[in-house]
Amino acid sequence: MKLLIRISYLGKDFYGYQAQKDKRTVQTELNRAASELFGFDCDITGCSRTDSGVHANCFCATVNKRGESGLVTEIDIKKIPRAMSAHLPEDIAVFDAEWVDDDFHARYDVKYKEYIYRINNSHVRDPFSEGRAWHYPRVLSENDVANMNAAAESFIGTHDFSAFMAQGSNVSTTVRTVVSASVEKLGNEIIFRVAADGFLYNMVRIMTGTLISVGEGKISPEDIDKIIKSKDRSLAGMTAPAHGLYLNKVVY
Amino acid sequence: MKLLIRISYLGKDFYGYQAQKDKRTVQTELNRAASELFGFDCDITGCSRTDSGVHANCFCATVNKRGESGLVTEIDIKKIPRAMSAHLPEDIAVFDAEWVDDDFHARYDVKYKEYIYRINNSHVRDPFSEGRAWHYPRVLSENDVANMNAAAESFIGTHDFSAFMAQGSNVSTTVRTVVSASVEKLGNEIIFRVAADGFLYNMVRIMTGTLISVGEGKISPEDIDKIIKSKDRSLAGMTAPAHGLYLNKVVY
Repeated sequence: MKLLIRISYLGKDFYGYQAQKDKRTVQTELNRAASELFGFDCDITGCSRTDSGVHANCFCATVNKRGESGLVTEIDIKKIPRAMSAHLPEDIAVFDAEWVDDDFHARYDVKYKEYIYRINNSHVRDPFSEGRAWHYPRVLSENDVANMNAAAESFIGTHDFSAFMAQGSNVSTTVRTVVSASVEKLGNEIIFRVAADGFLYNMVRIMTGTLISVGEGKISPEDIDKIIKSKDRSLAGMTAPAHGLYLNKVVY
Repeated sequence: MKLLIRISYLGKDFYGYQAQKDKRTVQTELNRAASELFGFDCDITGCSRTDSGVHANCFCATVNKRGESGLVTEIDIKKIPRAMSAHLPEDIAVFDAEWVDDDFHARYDVKYKEYIYRINNSHVRDPFSEGRAWHYPRVLSENDVANMNAAAESFIGTHDFSAFMAQGSNVSTTVRTVVSASVEKLGNEIIFRVAADGFLYNMVRIMTGTLISVGEGKISPEDIDKIIKSKDRSLAGMTAPAHGLYLNKVVY
């Protein structure tokens, strides 16, 4: 059996998820913690690669003994989240663990993932959302936010999202299926929530930048369809910064 | 006229509010920022002294020109929050400013203050509430929380709160009037909210530790009255750590 863990992390001090030489990454920390806990070398397979600065409320990964397809331990599965968290630094924690079959794949078996993007839409900075939400100081009206929500709904469906992909990306297909997308205002924050079977590089951050252009009145909600069909990155909005983005849910 | 500002700060990297030699404090930062913005030396009077590590969602302070009872500036009052925040580090911001009479006193004119105390009551750590909520890992039931709320209500009224004051404190009177007090569960967090005309040293943190003892069943809600009447610090609970405490509201 493989171990499937659900983790959360504050992305600020990580160079993203994937292991890189001499960089502090989520994968490196998980690898070290698992090896310390179980007493043998482990391999970690993550559900996706998050960029430097991106956060996770829920990221999934499997753990197996190096060179094997699973692992064996006497530790009670219910105790694994706390036990493994004890080997992790304060900006990352395991909050759930379960056994899955040896042929389960943390990345290929994902049905859909949900991201949220947090925008602090107050005219002044907020010390508590610093590094955790994008500060956009021009306060948008309820009507602006309603337009952003209408624009977000236009993302729903199966489309070629080339216009919402960072240039220079190399993928076999740029078609993705967005299953839900919405924008709401909660207090001083504007929250964009989007779920899809997969995401292109910077897709949620470019969608967010485009939604801000909608809020500003520079792009109308009806333009989203045309931008998608154009496959032209230059027609979409700016790439919103990494620090407002959270991987929020993973469904297998 | 004096300038009354409302600020928020993340307490983690401050040695509390009050200026101390060679320490990073909120008052020192405000003093520097005001002097930079207005172009003359200023004095800052705060609404209270918060301890090292304690946060503020809303802390009030007045600013006057050093040696005078007010200040004169050509900067529009509406622009002062952003302008002054631009001179402050990321863990502190001014979110509101208004003019008040020269004889207004930020500390003596307070009618009441409200504090909140955040407890992360999940069995695992949460990277996002690290340093911002006290992690209490034994998960309390709805009934435990209801008992804590009943206990909190016993704080309401005018009492001698000696039992809820750090030993060695030196104050002219230990009588305070608590105007509201409640405990509620929101997701994984337990929130204690208390408002009073004034607070003794460590009063909210000792109340919180006592409420946790109620949640654990070590103290019954009916015992609170007796503990208050005893004036005996040793009968109350532990002092909860500083990092869960927030000054939340100040009413003049």
